Amino acid sequence: MSGNTFGTIFRITTWGESHGCAVGVVVDGCPAGLTLSAEDVQKELDRRRPGQSIASTQRKEEDRAEIQSGLFEGKTTGTPISMIVWNKDADSSAYDAIRNAPRPGHADYTYVAKYGIRDHRGGGRASARETVGRVAAGAVAKKFLANEGIEILGYVTELGGIKAEISSMDLSELRAKAESNPIRCPDQDAAERMLQLLDQVRREGDSLGGVVDILAKGVPPGLGEPVFDKLDADLAKALMSLGAVKAVEIGAGLESARLRGNQMNDSLIFREGKVDFETNNAGGILGGISTGAPIFCRIAVKPTPSISRKQRTVDLSANKDSEIEIKGRHDPTIPPRIVPVAEAMVAIVLADHLLRSRSARL
Amino acid sequence: MSGNTFGTIFRITTWGESHGCAVGVVVDGCPAGLTLSAEDVQKELDRRRPGQSIASTQRKEEDRAEIQSGLFEGKTTGTPISMIVWNKDADSSAYDAIRNAPRPGHADYTYVAKYGIRDHRGGGRASARETVGRVAAGAVAKKFLANEGIEILGYVTELGGIKAEISSMDLSELRAKAESNPIRCPDQDAAERMLQLLDQVRREGDSLGGVVDILAKGVPPGLGEPVFDKLDADLAKALMSLGAVKAVEIGAGLESARLRGNQMNDSLIFREGKVDFETNNAGGILGGISTGAPIFCRIAVKPTPSISRKQRTVDLSANKDSEIEIKGRHDPTIPPRIVPVAEAMVAIVLADHLLRSRSARL
Amino acid sequence: MSGNTFGTIFRITTWGESHGCAVGVVVDGCPAGLTLSAEDVQKELDRRRPGQSIASTQRKEEDRAEIQSGLFEGKTTGTPISMIVWNKDADSSAYDAIRNAPRPGHADYTYVAKYGIRDHRGGGRASARETVGRVAAGAVAKKFLANEGIEILGYVTELGGIKAEISSMDLSELRAKAESNPIRCPDQDAAERMLQLLDQVRREGDSLGGVVDILAKGVPPGLGEPVFDKLDADLAKALMSLGAVKAVEIGAGLESARLRGNQMNDSLIFREGKVDFETNNAGGILGGISTGAPIFCRIAVKPTPSISRKQRTVDLSANKDSEIEIKGRHDPTIPPRIVPVAEAMVAIVLADHLLRSRSARL
Amino acid sequence: MSGNTFGTIFRITTWGESHGCAVGVVVDGCPAGLTLSAEDVQKELDRRRPGQSIASTQRKEEDRAEIQSGLFEGKTTGTPISMIVWNKDADSSAYDAIRNAPRPGHADYTYVAKYGIRDHRGGGRASARETVGRVAAGAVAKKFLANEGIEILGYVTELGGIKAEISSMDLSELRAKAESNPIRCPDQDAAERMLQLLDQVRREGDSLGGVVDILAKGVPPGLGEPVFDKLDADLAKALMSLGAVKAVEIGAGLESARLRGNQMNDSLIFREGKVDFETNNAGGILGGISTGAPIFCRIAVKPTPSISRKQRTVDLSANKDSEIEIKGRHDPTIPPRIVPVAEAMVAIVLADHLLRSRSARL
Repeated sequence: MSGNTFGTIFRITTWGESHGCAVGVVVDGCPAGLTLSAEDVQKELDRRRPGQSIASTQRKEEDRAEIQSGLFEGKTTGTPISMIVWNKDADSSAYDAIRNAPRPGHADYTYVAKYGIRDHRGGGRASARETVGRVAAGAVAKKFLANEGIEILGYVTELGGIKAEISSMDLSELRAKAESNPIRCPDQDAAERMLQLLDQVRREGDSLGGVVDILAKGVPPGLGEPVFDKLDADLAKALMSLGAVKAVEIGAGLESARLRGNQMNDSLIFREGKVDFETNNAGGILGGISTGAPIFCRIAVKPTPSISRKQRTVDLSANKDSEIEIKGRHDPTIPPRIVPVAEAMVAIVLADHLLRSRSARL
Repeated sequence: MSGNTFGTIFRITTWGESHGCAVGVVVDGCPAGLTLSAEDVQKELDRRRPGQSIASTQRKEEDRAEIQSGLFEGKTTGTPISMIVWNKDADSSAYDAIRNAPRPGHADYTYVAKYGIRDHRGGGRASARETVGRVAAGAVAKKFLANEGIEILGYVTELGGIKAEISSMDLSELRAKAESNPIRCPDQDAAERMLQLLDQVRREGDSLGGVVDILAKGVPPGLGEPVFDKLDADLAKALMSLGAVKAVEIGAGLESARLRGNQMNDSLIFREGKVDFETNNAGGILGGISTGAPIFCRIAVKPTPSISRKQRTVDLSANKDSEIEIKGRHDPTIPPRIVPVAEAMVAIVLADHLLRSRSARL
Repeated sequence: MSGNTFGTIFRITTWGESHGCAVGVVVDGCPAGLTLSAEDVQKELDRRRPGQSIASTQRKEEDRAEIQSGLFEGKTTGTPISMIVWNKDADSSAYDAIRNAPRPGHADYTYVAKYGIRDHRGGGRASARETVGRVAAGAVAKKFLANEGIEILGYVTELGGIKAEISSMDLSELRAKAESNPIRCPDQDAAERMLQLLDQVRREGDSLGGVVDILAKGVPPGLGEPVFDKLDADLAKALMSLGAVKAVEIGAGLESARLRGNQMNDSLIFREGKVDFETNNAGGILGGISTGAPIFCRIAVKPTPSISRKQRTVDLSANKDSEIEIKGRHDPTIPPRIVPVAEAMVAIVLADHLLRSRSARL
Repeated sequence: MSGNTFGTIFRITTWGESHGCAVGVVVDGCPAGLTLSAEDVQKELDRRRPGQSIASTQRKEEDRAEIQSGLFEGKTTGTPISMIVWNKDADSSAYDAIRNAPRPGHADYTYVAKYGIRDHRGGGRASARETVGRVAAGAVAKKFLANEGIEILGYVTELGGIKAEISSMDLSELRAKAESNPIRCPDQDAAERMLQLLDQVRREGDSLGGVVDILAKGVPPGLGEPVFDKLDADLAKALMSLGAVKAVEIGAGLESARLRGNQMNDSLIFREGKVDFETNNAGGILGGISTGAPIFCRIAVKPTPSISRKQRTVDLSANKDSEIEIKGRHDPTIPPRIVPVAEAMVAIVLADHLLRSRSARL
């Protein structure tokens, strides 16, 4: 059972390598009747695209989404939605140097160890370019979720140790602030300090890690399938499947370990005739099932492994120690660009569980 | 697609409620020819069993593992291994009070929201008793892994804010130390302070959270299926599917967000003719595939939600605010007892991926 | 991915060997709120039980269904339903002779070829006793389907070459007739001739094959997931997974190959304001999706492989040709007893697709 | 869980509609290291392509296979293999007439019943054009199987009631004969009579059904996962998932119902030091596991539903009875062209089970 498919009812399969002709995704299980257009997808791909700021690489990718199937007269038909984004002709010769010299922090060595062969050009299948398919699929999921009143937003809350102050959890306000700067940090002041640090680190040939929060509002109670396909378990898998993510937290997350029971527990109360919670340390999930409160996830993103400093590695062709210097332009930090990808993964999980929840009762 | 099955080739299905007649598990996909006995399973169940110390409840459960199928003359046959553990007759009347009053921090409300009906007795399906099946299945996985030279160990590294000092990563040494105290903390001094704090908190009718590390040694390079069923992604799901877990970290985990690229990247070197790594910030996984270095996971465990203090909740039968006092004995902290369960989940993931990796090449 | 689980949303996992302590099944994904009792299950197990007539073995099995989980106050809770049927103490010594001598027509040789080990006692996992779990799970599926207005009936239409005349497709009438004789054939006259032939063949130490039809009424249009999980494809798999089945037909089945297009095509018409079909050569399925017309399946069942005549086989311990005489009582024909099992498999497929169809539209 | 994915380890996902821009398939789980080229795939697509004879439509499709991913320097890398075949610009206006008038024998009505919307142009997703993806995936499976010494061949054995005489089961001989005439029937004399009948029936505006056999040689013993994912069960599903198939037989198939036990059972013997069978009524499968003898499947194919005669149907826009005349060129019979598709499905099942069997033992 290979690993390029994700989800059960709402299910995506991605394919493609960095320097192949294209990358793509097949979305199966999207309900029929949803209004969908290439623009819906393009909007999200544009958010993922490397920009012009120092927070991302200077490469100009113009990823155009093409929807190849599953649509008829502007609506989904219930059949698979294939989407493709063509790769620009890339010069792969720059990668000759890494053919036998695995880059530290990358999947180069492990792909060889597993498959005995690997497309080393541009990182091959392990390239972040693979996430184009996730973002395209996530756009479909978001459209479906919006139709059900569910909205998702990700933003950077920490970069290189600089922490943002989040004063409001209002989604519109957060979105407006986060999308107004290249860091995607809703705290404008922190964003500026992050940019400065980033500029300095980049000039040092190094890179920064950071923290991204993802918030989902409007999720009804009852989503999640105990005991293994819990909503938080599936979110953890979805987010940890992103290359640079090294930790996933739900609700109070790691902080939970330091709270006492009476601090951690969220009291239940009636608000406007409906069950609600006084606090949300649970992050909107109890026993693996959504509570109706906002879903809150947090991911720790490691610093970009491609740095221009000289690094130690091995020469697999000669079986000896070696050194490597990685050329080319690389994002000096990943969090700003992982935001739309993380949102996509959360959207896919929620869309899937929304459909799965339809079978909970008679 | 219901959520009570986990794994693809090595696959487990658990069933049972806290106050039903029994809990159990069916393990499918264990290779034929493995020497296995009820004692192998019992050993792990005994580690999970509530003990006599203040770190766990005073209840005496004598969980006896019975293997009902899949064995012939002491060896697995490749057919499903059904295992059952009978529940002791329980007095469910103590739970009448919570029938309509969802306990804060528990899955009571969400089960009702999802299914419209719930077995409230002893927490029903959402009880930690469900993990008996996981531990039994994990014992089978461990036996298979041991046969392949893979060993797994979990231990507590933080409780109620008290952090342990881990001086060695030698598995035998860690095991001997961790299993020598009721906290399962390899730092004896820290363990004593944890016990003292626990005693105090328990008397205050409150509970503590903590942190557990899980280490797997002997894992060959090449395990994990990119791009979604990455080894770290599946570990994250497996561990987050445990009720009290609110965060999962791999390798440097959350700390990765604060490191620079040149600090985070693990240099590759040749050691004794084999590719190795100078450091292991990756936690033994790159691009979702094992590197051959030790696998390192960390989980944050929330404080026990069942506390004896009065808490606010709602009365679902009367649609009004209410209060609740939870009676009975409950573990004042979960980490010591979650250790064998977390080990089991890691073992199941590794067993599954070991089998999946057999199809990577011609 | 092991093969002991069937279904996607409504999903069953069976376990157990013929001479182990028990056989059982875990049903996952049954919607919450369904009224269910052990009697519902017992009723179907009793139909499967070997009876007193010459059409089945003289053994007295008193299979009692026990429901171990997933029920609360008489209703399903949405959690896994574990069911167990204990095996009577069996004398396995009679099977010593076949330990190294694979019985022709049985799975003896192939289990050894696959697993290198096998529980030979009573056929082990490959025994028809495994179908106890299927029938128990099918009883749950039938209860769910009845709630949705769907009814299923199987009956024998051919035995040893003797064909029944089916004069009516009325389900109640068919059921009354079929269940009135030990052959389960709705044509009483044919049933008598079948019984006579069976008696003769049994005395000759031989066995008979036959044909069973399964009819499902009340199935709404829209069930089935193209292009691979078509309703007919899943029915074919479900029925072919029964040990003795060698052919599965849908609607006109094999006869379709001899019809011309204008004979085969079922014209659409309006009946009582609803779309209906003039004929039903399609067997209620077009393009893998139910049409609303009755679902019609037919299976060819091979003669019981356990016959008392001397047969040629090999001695696996000595790597030489050998002979075998199978002792003990065996059904001289399988069709009458496969009826409730085939119904169960059809019920499980329909229950699963009914739930799956809930996600077809927004 | 949508139905456009098939297989567990070797897994394919098809997408695309008849009049969309393209049809395609993603093959996941093909082992790394397999030599593969677009020519391997083209060869099979050419066999599926409508030809010049009266046995198939006169349309000229020039389906060119493009491999978009998963290959590096001529070898598979273990990552998903995406393949696409562009559709020629089609004039969809001819299909306006069927927008609201479901064609008898087609999936038109059921797609509307299920999804509430359908792409009616050229049959949309339910068009036989979808099988392009299956054939392309099957070509990859065949390449993998050839590497393991397994060969597959399909051929027509009956058409419009005319039966072929098959004098030899030698694969090379069968292939040479079958591929020498447009019916793909290894009996040249029968093939000529079939062609004559076909010509006559076509001129009458009608169509013919037929029977296709598929044979697989070189399959080792041990493939198939009891108890549900039996090899014959998965073959039955794979073949029944083809639109026009109404029956699947394994080995003696329907004839089994008329044999006695002593006729049906295949005696085991030693041949050249290996276990073999005197006969092969089992069709190479016992208890759902391959025996090592040739795998033998047979399918009944219904007559082409698109016939030029006037047929009764309904007008869904006006809710009244109506009539339909189907224009355009259509194959007057399906069996000759289904041969490579059926081979592909058998190849995919065998490739999947070959990989699955790698986990059967320690």
